[in-house]
Amino acid sequence: MGNTFGHLFRITTFGESHGGGVGVVIDGCPPLLEISEAEIQVELDRRKPGQSKITTPRRESDICEIISGVFEGKTTGTAIAILVRNQDARSQDYNEMAEKYRPSHADVTYDAKYGIRSWQGGGRSSARETIGRVAAGAIAKKILQQVAGIEVIGYVSRIKDLEAIVDPNTVTLAQVESNIVRCPDSECADKMIDLIDQIRREKDSIGGVVECVARNLPKGLGMPVFDKLEADLAKAVMSLPASKGFEIGSGFAGTLLKGSEHNDEYYLDEDKEIRTRTNRSGGIQGGISNGENITLRVAFKPTATIGKEQNTVTRSKEETVLAAKGRHDPCVLPRAVPMVEAMVALVLCDHLLRHHAQCNLL
Amino acid sequence: MGNTFGHLFRITTFGESHGGGVGVVIDGCPPLLEISEAEIQVELDRRKPGQSKITTPRRESDICEIISGVFEGKTTGTAIAILVRNQDARSQDYNEMAEKYRPSHADVTYDAKYGIRSWQGGGRSSARETIGRVAAGAIAKKILQQVAGIEVIGYVSRIKDLEAIVDPNTVTLAQVESNIVRCPDSECADKMIDLIDQIRREKDSIGGVVECVARNLPKGLGMPVFDKLEADLAKAVMSLPASKGFEIGSGFAGTLLKGSEHNDEYYLDEDKEIRTRTNRSGGIQGGISNGENITLRVAFKPTATIGKEQNTVTRSKEETVLAAKGRHDPCVLPRAVPMVEAMVALVLCDHLLRHHAQCNLL
Amino acid sequence: MGNTFGHLFRITTFGESHGGGVGVVIDGCPPLLEISEAEIQVELDRRKPGQSKITTPRRESDICEIISGVFEGKTTGTAIAILVRNQDARSQDYNEMAEKYRPSHADVTYDAKYGIRSWQGGGRSSARETIGRVAAGAIAKKILQQVAGIEVIGYVSRIKDLEAIVDPNTVTLAQVESNIVRCPDSECADKMIDLIDQIRREKDSIGGVVECVARNLPKGLGMPVFDKLEADLAKAVMSLPASKGFEIGSGFAGTLLKGSEHNDEYYLDEDKEIRTRTNRSGGIQGGISNGENITLRVAFKPTATIGKEQNTVTRSKEETVLAAKGRHDPCVLPRAVPMVEAMVALVLCDHLLRHHAQCNLL
Amino acid sequence: MGNTFGHLFRITTFGESHGGGVGVVIDGCPPLLEISEAEIQVELDRRKPGQSKITTPRRESDICEIISGVFEGKTTGTAIAILVRNQDARSQDYNEMAEKYRPSHADVTYDAKYGIRSWQGGGRSSARETIGRVAAGAIAKKILQQVAGIEVIGYVSRIKDLEAIVDPNTVTLAQVESNIVRCPDSECADKMIDLIDQIRREKDSIGGVVECVARNLPKGLGMPVFDKLEADLAKAVMSLPASKGFEIGSGFAGTLLKGSEHNDEYYLDEDKEIRTRTNRSGGIQGGISNGENITLRVAFKPTATIGKEQNTVTRSKEETVLAAKGRHDPCVLPRAVPMVEAMVALVLCDHLLRHHAQCNLL
Repeated sequence: MGNTFGHLFRITTFGESHGGGVGVVIDGCPPLLEISEAEIQVELDRRKPGQSKITTPRRESDICEIISGVFEGKTTGTAIAILVRNQDARSQDYNEMAEKYRPSHADVTYDAKYGIRSWQGGGRSSARETIGRVAAGAIAKKILQQVAGIEVIGYVSRIKDLEAIVDPNTVTLAQVESNIVRCPDSECADKMIDLIDQIRREKDSIGGVVECVARNLPKGLGMPVFDKLEADLAKAVMSLPASKGFEIGSGFAGTLLKGSEHNDEYYLDEDKEIRTRTNRSGGIQGGISNGENITLRVAFKPTATIGKEQNTVTRSKEETVLAAKGRHDPCVLPRAVPMVEAMVALVLCDHLLRHHAQCNLL
Repeated sequence: MGNTFGHLFRITTFGESHGGGVGVVIDGCPPLLEISEAEIQVELDRRKPGQSKITTPRRESDICEIISGVFEGKTTGTAIAILVRNQDARSQDYNEMAEKYRPSHADVTYDAKYGIRSWQGGGRSSARETIGRVAAGAIAKKILQQVAGIEVIGYVSRIKDLEAIVDPNTVTLAQVESNIVRCPDSECADKMIDLIDQIRREKDSIGGVVECVARNLPKGLGMPVFDKLEADLAKAVMSLPASKGFEIGSGFAGTLLKGSEHNDEYYLDEDKEIRTRTNRSGGIQGGISNGENITLRVAFKPTATIGKEQNTVTRSKEETVLAAKGRHDPCVLPRAVPMVEAMVALVLCDHLLRHHAQCNLL
Repeated sequence: MGNTFGHLFRITTFGESHGGGVGVVIDGCPPLLEISEAEIQVELDRRKPGQSKITTPRRESDICEIISGVFEGKTTGTAIAILVRNQDARSQDYNEMAEKYRPSHADVTYDAKYGIRSWQGGGRSSARETIGRVAAGAIAKKILQQVAGIEVIGYVSRIKDLEAIVDPNTVTLAQVESNIVRCPDSECADKMIDLIDQIRREKDSIGGVVECVARNLPKGLGMPVFDKLEADLAKAVMSLPASKGFEIGSGFAGTLLKGSEHNDEYYLDEDKEIRTRTNRSGGIQGGISNGENITLRVAFKPTATIGKEQNTVTRSKEETVLAAKGRHDPCVLPRAVPMVEAMVALVLCDHLLRHHAQCNLL
Repeated sequence: MGNTFGHLFRITTFGESHGGGVGVVIDGCPPLLEISEAEIQVELDRRKPGQSKITTPRRESDICEIISGVFEGKTTGTAIAILVRNQDARSQDYNEMAEKYRPSHADVTYDAKYGIRSWQGGGRSSARETIGRVAAGAIAKKILQQVAGIEVIGYVSRIKDLEAIVDPNTVTLAQVESNIVRCPDSECADKMIDLIDQIRREKDSIGGVVECVARNLPKGLGMPVFDKLEADLAKAVMSLPASKGFEIGSGFAGTLLKGSEHNDEYYLDEDKEIRTRTNRSGGIQGGISNGENITLRVAFKPTATIGKEQNTVTRSKEETVLAAKGRHDPCVLPRAVPMVEAMVALVLCDHLLRHHAQCNLL
């Protein structure tokens, strides 16, 4: 359980850091969508390790193979399976971690829950697990674009205490991809890169905040009560490794305002469309999109695996000290950007189908 | 869709602010649990309107009736249905809101999605919808208590900028219930009450933060990948009306630390149990509980419906001004406490069953 | 678990034979459908006990109340809750059955599973449980009719060895409702009624077969692999009390033919539409509707509860003899007709929405 | 949608007849189960084509690879992915079928639903799709055996009008596997083999009935209302290609008996266990297992694809004639046996976990 996400556009992921590979099965994709391995690869390349000096040096080309569900370049409406083989696995790096639990990592809890753990590279708790999400997200993004011109753009908005200035209403993918930290504020990006590089040399790690915006949304996505759009978005991104917090619109800062300051007043635009002048709601009211941009933020903690010495215990219950070997990201944020985008796209695509089913039938 | 929550301990809610009533169907409850309407009523009374001068004056006794699933005081394992009739509905208060959209409320989005809206009292978007959650949460809490001594305690930790000092490891229900704002820091509570009362007189509203702790958790609840415990908790509380943000453990503040500062180092306690000295993980690592206390925070925005004049538009697309009538909470926080507890209890109970099914069978 | 059915048009039922009542929550219903309690009551009246001399004499008016989800005569898109209160419960009739297990009834298995059982009237295993299904089915039927002119008609095709001659392509609801056994072959119906009446006097029971046809179906409903249309129909009707067998199209008899005899050859009708001359497929090929009429049959065993003496055992594990009191149908078939129709309509409606979501979006 | 089956022990299959391969992801498997590719291969070999003169001559070794979820020979509790590559695909055989629709096959309905179809070998509608089910079924069987000594045995009980005599209470796997038609009545089996061989030479096809028994079941599996054990079993086997009917216990024949003849009277065996002398219930009462053997039957129609000439139409809507090329089974029954067993095992395993979660917790 727990390896499936979504209700109508539904993905099931599989695979571990080491072993046969990782992948995803996508169920419920509309038929006749043109899709190629190359399009999926673009997103996987944004996620893959070894892409720059501030990511883990593990070398994985992460080449994807579409096993099924696509015929002559188009989706057939049946299950799409995508597989990425593992390549540069170095199990020996993990020999020590087979026995010594990494603090704040999943080692202890997996062992406690299952009594067994694929300890090589973290097994299922490795961030390689997100490959399937990103591959599926590439397809979700294409559907969103094609059906309604919706675009989903994520970016690093803060690294530790370095806060970028970005306008979610105008930021472009090109700006995000213009530097290796994926922060569209290029001045701040330089500082971020320097900081991450310095932390890497200290064998330590840092975290930060990814912001994500979805634009051109139709009104009406999302549902009352439990499957509110912000609830499904929260679950989606809080299921990413290392995430510790979620905000929609004004988030925690909004709690400092009075209602009269916080409310987004309505007006009619030139097309007599109902709009809000401000967007503290983050594009969602009562769980349903109001047509304004959806804006959300995700907090990512500093990477748990670090080269510095830490006190810990062993599987056989001895206290010990661990300085982790293996190849790890000093900061997950740059690679988390495509992950957040993928999860947001998956939620929006699922709700697009759900809304269409219920509200465009009669 | 969207009215069901949970996988094994699963609830489906129904009902609107005005009309026949509100309620819940609970599916998957273990049999032979002793439960009474009186026990459920205790929680409903914490949630009900009119309980103090800082909540809405709407008078609802919110008396619950168990329709099915309990026989001679014990659960039978079949569907438990609980119904609460509406009483003090004053539809006339809403006549104006039938036509004028309340800013930052669900009025516009429901109309956009469905083309129809039970506008009396907000219909399904009313906070009365949470009655079913709280009733089901009362049962979930009892199971948690009985199976593993787990206790779930929520409290108001901040109102606007008034921040309380509370130790989640020791706070008691009695402390929470000792004042009408449900803040265990009694000195701060007095200030909060004064502030809410003043805002009420200003016909405005304010928000804040509810913190919640779950104690005595076994290791092993939660699942890898999508149904991580923090992901399900995030969805659960972000589905509550007016919630805008979620944090687990160190949350957003944790992103300001280095890995070496943030990691929770392990040690062995006197029983040779693996423990952490700090708890920035908030009791969850890799999506699975590690036996430490689960701590989370939820941001609630200021109530959208206020008596102050606001610019808005009408259903027939005219710009206008609205000063909302009806009876509304100047601050949802005191009544949000039992709602957050209920959602947390529902998630933990569901994962308790899911863990038991998979990991205690062979 | 087990009290919810359907994926997009989803129902959750609750309630027992005795106690507060029975009902259903319908989630995912399209908005703006005109629906009234009177329309639902028509179907409930076809199901209710005491409607003729060949059904149980228990008197229940089975008046339904729509609690939520309908506003000014139209569905709002939110959860529809429908409640029917129990009236003529005579618990004393069941005192003996509290202790003595009825052969071939659910008494033993409920006790074995749950360790507790609402023994009054069979509790959750009572056929009163189907009230929620029939109420929801009434709404599903209306959607099917409105969206695509689909009609679902069930009828009794066999009672014990009395086999009716009915043409599923032309049978009408009026013909079905023209007699109390719901068999459109009026000559055979008379014999069936006599037989049931005689069996009733013998304090025994009989079974038979309900046939059901769905007409005017669009091509394309249903899905490959697990959610084939016939698979979901099979589950739907095999979840009805007393059902023992299911056939689609040629069913078991089709296994006696060669492929060259069994296959439905294609031709083009005057509108150049692809049609089959025969319909041994029963309107479904590869799990997906082909536009021909869907025909299915459900076997119902003789009612388990009978007045005749039978050997059995008690809850306290003594062998004994039971001649059941209480009021029971000598033959469930006449009342099973609206139940089968309801389940078929629910499946078709769910697949209508599912198909619309996936295949009519791009 | 429709590629996932099960609630707690849940499988998702993917893949087509031609293309990258077929496979399955198993989610929710208990950890620490010893499992190997060799054990899974045993079941796949029973299903694979080319195994005898009465099956299709297509040569596929169907070698499985466990991609993830198993570590050092044991399940880890995380998603198990199994992949089987396609080998002997001859797309050219299907060139004609790209244009000409096969009567009673899924060609027309897939095209109608999706507007596209992987026509090579039937794409997703090919029986190769069942490889994932059989692989997952092998694991389910092992769990059933290990937890409760449950065994699931299927066999051919009828080919066309050749009916075997088999005692479900004593039949063994060795008897089933003692001949190529998988009928434990060896005398009848010889006749069946001759008949299939003759039909094959006639370029025609035949169907029949597979019977399946599950023995050593605990009391209490299954659930009231929609997820009755027989309902889930019905869906499971009616989702297999070519199935047209389902019976549990007495099935359709039971409708010819009176209640006094049909009921299974209770008695106490020497261990004071409540048992039934007869088993017309087929091991299930009120949707829940009663500890007796579960017996069910599945009708399989004659294979739709035949070499004989048939009238049909083309994709471009011309009437034509088709004599199908390609390699097809003259009778699916021998290979359907492991498929039925797999589906039954999957349902029982899922309900074993579901029962354990709800009823063994408190």
